[in-house]
Amino acid sequence: MMGGMTQTPHPLFTAHAETLQRALTAIAERSYWSAYPESPSPRVYGETAAADGEAAFKAMLNSDFVLDQPAGVDTVATERSPFGIELGVRYPHSAADDLIAAATAALPGWRAAGPATRTGVCLEILHRIHQQIFTMANAVQFTTGQAFVMAFQAGGAHALDRALEAVAYAYSEMTRHPETARWEKPAGKGDPLVMNKTFHVVPRGVALVVGCRTFPTWNSFPGLFASLATGNPVIVKPHPGAILPLALTVKIAREVLAEAGFDPNLVTLAVEAEGEYIASALAVRPEVKIVDFTGSTQYGDWLEEHARQAQVYTEKAGLNSIIIDSTDDFAGMCRNLAFTLSLYSGQMCTTSQNIFIPRDGITTADGPKTFDEVAAGIAGAVAKLTTDPARAVELIGAIGDERVLERIEEASKLGEVVLASNALEHPAFPAATVRTPLLVKLGADATAVYSDEWFGPITFLIATDSTAQSIAIFRETVGAKGGLTAGVYSTSEQVLDEVELAAIEVGIHLSVNLTGGVFVNQSAAFSDFHGSGANPAANAALTDGAYVASRFRIVQSRR
Amino acid sequence: MMGGMTQTPHPLFTAHAETLQRALTAIAERSYWSAYPESPSPRVYGETAAADGEAAFKAMLNSDFVLDQPAGVDTVATERSPFGIELGVRYPHSAADDLIAAATAALPGWRAAGPATRTGVCLEILHRIHQQIFTMANAVQFTTGQAFVMAFQAGGAHALDRALEAVAYAYSEMTRHPETARWEKPAGKGDPLVMNKTFHVVPRGVALVVGCRTFPTWNSFPGLFASLATGNPVIVKPHPGAILPLALTVKIAREVLAEAGFDPNLVTLAVEAEGEYIASALAVRPEVKIVDFTGSTQYGDWLEEHARQAQVYTEKAGLNSIIIDSTDDFAGMCRNLAFTLSLYSGQMCTTSQNIFIPRDGITTADGPKTFDEVAAGIAGAVAKLTTDPARAVELIGAIGDERVLERIEEASKLGEVVLASNALEHPAFPAATVRTPLLVKLGADATAVYSDEWFGPITFLIATDSTAQSIAIFRETVGAKGGLTAGVYSTSEQVLDEVELAAIEVGIHLSVNLTGGVFVNQSAAFSDFHGSGANPAANAALTDGAYVASRFRIVQSRR
Repeated sequence: MMGGMTQTPHPLFTAHAETLQRALTAIAERSYWSAYPESPSPRVYGETAAADGEAAFKAMLNSDFVLDQPAGVDTVATERSPFGIELGVRYPHSAADDLIAAATAALPGWRAAGPATRTGVCLEILHRIHQQIFTMANAVQFTTGQAFVMAFQAGGAHALDRALEAVAYAYSEMTRHPETARWEKPAGKGDPLVMNKTFHVVPRGVALVVGCRTFPTWNSFPGLFASLATGNPVIVKPHPGAILPLALTVKIAREVLAEAGFDPNLVTLAVEAEGEYIASALAVRPEVKIVDFTGSTQYGDWLEEHARQAQVYTEKAGLNSIIIDSTDDFAGMCRNLAFTLSLYSGQMCTTSQNIFIPRDGITTADGPKTFDEVAAGIAGAVAKLTTDPARAVELIGAIGDERVLERIEEASKLGEVVLASNALEHPAFPAATVRTPLLVKLGADATAVYSDEWFGPITFLIATDSTAQSIAIFRETVGAKGGLTAGVYSTSEQVLDEVELAAIEVGIHLSVNLTGGVFVNQSAAFSDFHGSGANPAANAALTDGAYVASRFRIVQSRR
Repeated sequence: MMGGMTQTPHPLFTAHAETLQRALTAIAERSYWSAYPESPSPRVYGETAAADGEAAFKAMLNSDFVLDQPAGVDTVATERSPFGIELGVRYPHSAADDLIAAATAALPGWRAAGPATRTGVCLEILHRIHQQIFTMANAVQFTTGQAFVMAFQAGGAHALDRALEAVAYAYSEMTRHPETARWEKPAGKGDPLVMNKTFHVVPRGVALVVGCRTFPTWNSFPGLFASLATGNPVIVKPHPGAILPLALTVKIAREVLAEAGFDPNLVTLAVEAEGEYIASALAVRPEVKIVDFTGSTQYGDWLEEHARQAQVYTEKAGLNSIIIDSTDDFAGMCRNLAFTLSLYSGQMCTTSQNIFIPRDGITTADGPKTFDEVAAGIAGAVAKLTTDPARAVELIGAIGDERVLERIEEASKLGEVVLASNALEHPAFPAATVRTPLLVKLGADATAVYSDEWFGPITFLIATDSTAQSIAIFRETVGAKGGLTAGVYSTSEQVLDEVELAAIEVGIHLSVNLTGGVFVNQSAAFSDFHGSGANPAANAALTDGAYVASRFRIVQSRR
């Protein structure tokens, strides 16, 4: 019989069986677990790891990135570092037709390998990426503008965790049914009817992953590895500003695939010249059956509208919101929010933008606080985090997209500026573009402003009639535009239940009374779901059954 | 906390826990199991069950079907029995707006009931339908034209099995993650970070089920119960020609829901006046988030194109094909195919239409057979099955759609008629429209004919250059138009492997060398998948994880 799991497990499956088993337990429990240590400490990764990674990164700059994939006619070099350093990596520029043809040709062998072997190969790819995590962290840092530790964690360890999570779901879903079954139906006094059935896991076709600039690995890995594990060749199209992390990923994947005896063209890189729009050309090809995308609502909607032949998974813009009603830890709340607003200059798809506060103020353990006192509390906490540039830049990183700077300018004219966005000098990278968060006070009637996404370090403090109005506006705006994260601060169980019901109804994940070391903009693999698929900000979640189940089909034969 | 499973299981969950557990085992093993006995024997169902069911059915004729749902302005009575008896059931005719409003209002309470309670209620509905299986069998028989035993099995027991299968998948998927989890992340020497997380199963919205005429229950139950179990209120839109089986279903569902303390408007019936197109009006409503449809490719494509706000599951037309290469049981093959072609006058979405046979004949255990001998063998077996009208009608049933008769006429002019379609007199129902299967010989070049679906008792025997050409045409036609079932007869392992690979590549389920009591057009719940979602004939399968996973979302809150 063809197509099923091989009788003897592939050595790569055996090698990673324990990790897989642990991951399968984690996705069923959804309590804390992580496979890849998030601390870049030498005690964890060894004394020379950091320096080796930096050297490996530097060696790639201003040179050709070697990738033995279907030949490009030329090379492209489109990255500009937010830290102002010269990157100059030249990537092979392949034609869409060649990438599709190579992926299509690679499919049958990968399909025939079966779920377990594919899973083993995917886990080996993750293992090899992990071995180069410092190189990856540098690549993420200098393309995205994230500070090093964040690039190491979000772009390295956490991205790998999210990838492993997706592979575990894929494996679980593919092995939900047996490979074969004997069907024996009693037939009265006669012999039973007997059929031997084989259930083939069949991939959908060619998969396309369209990466974003800010989180090239974290947001691309789940789709990439979910598609690959389920048997689909993957064409990886990075954002022109953040190619290196995904180029590195593709290179490692191709090496592992080739070593394991598979066609390396199962994973290829699709870079583009300026104005080429290769993602659009690829996305509507009949061979492409899966598209994963993170980025703008406009382009996500375009993909959903036009790539009708494919299963399209999108994460788009939204209105991440916080409702402040009351708190028994005012300082903790302000510190917690300040960290969220400052981290990576608010350039996370999960950063809170709209903070709703009753205009008559709130109650706290230290007595009532007026709206302005709450605003000042948050502003003060942000200012404190960002006073020392040397420390601040390790939190807020740098900004790579000019449009973020324009938005900061524009937003600062739309209301009372509670905290201005300042330019900071980066001690190590003088050419880096660094801006502190902007806080602007708005009235509840400024719907036209706060019901759009203002991506970047821009937060609106919105004065409402009451918490009831805050909840009503939250329902309305998130219901219409979506959102990935919501938070609420209240000492009233009734208010918390009301907000939780509102969050359920508009389909947004809610964090309640965060005052310590957990932040609304962070989601932990294996436990937190990222995106719900239940509001306009995303049509899928990282990661649940729905995220993997439609990436393959079952085709049965019976004898 | 709101929304999760109640602490004490609902009595209906407890009552059906064993059935659920057995069903969960069955979907994981996919070997033989059935929950509802398929034999209408008095030894199984009791001496009076048949007569009681018939009486209950007759009592519904020529009267108002009472359903206390959102008031209709009038009633409609659109059914005409293929058996020529007067039905005259008048159904309450509700407005689309009222149905949507009632469903929307019913949602929150059903969502809050949680997965286990909803599952228990669904299983009780199935149990109650089963108690009225003879009434249902009559309703299916006299609306669809199926003979009684088939209506009892396919429309009763097997439909209930398929429904239970869907509920089991839904329950399994909803409970794949815990309702709550404690997340505890080590934090160096400090206290660990701790969060308590709740994962709410949130339905997508209002679900619409659009039924077909030939299998009103079998094809509608999986979507209906998968949506209902996952928390979505369901509006059931039957085919105007086969309302009664679904009206009965809706009535029973509403009774169970009301008794269990839920809003009966969680399940409503949407009938239509002639030319009203209520399915189209409902399908594009923003509140409608799930559509399940069985029927024509044209309307299925329309739904996929226009109901963009919804998750759309379609089963459409296709080209069910048989490749005959060789056999060691020529008589068994002919008998098996004859049964398939005759059952319900070929009005199954799974009936074989295109039978590919090498024009130079095949090898058999009795020596070589020419093409014409193979054709004559199949024709003879069909003729034998249909010589005695009294016996024949219990197999082939009656035809309710005038267009089937027109197609028979048209098809008989397109090639050499190997076996003519005859009109038979039904001994019990003289006004019934009964036709025996038509077999037409075509050349391989008659692509324009056999690459369309000819729904009804119409089968083409297609003379090819060789089995290799049969396989090539099979790949091409099924690849382009899709199909639900494929069969192959061969004594060569190599040919079987080639056909199996072709079936995998075009995504169609394959049956190999069927010569006994299993038929290519039948699929068994809990074991066989029906439709693959991997070719144009259907975008989903009954039933796998993908069929249920996108009917709900997970929304999390963490404190």
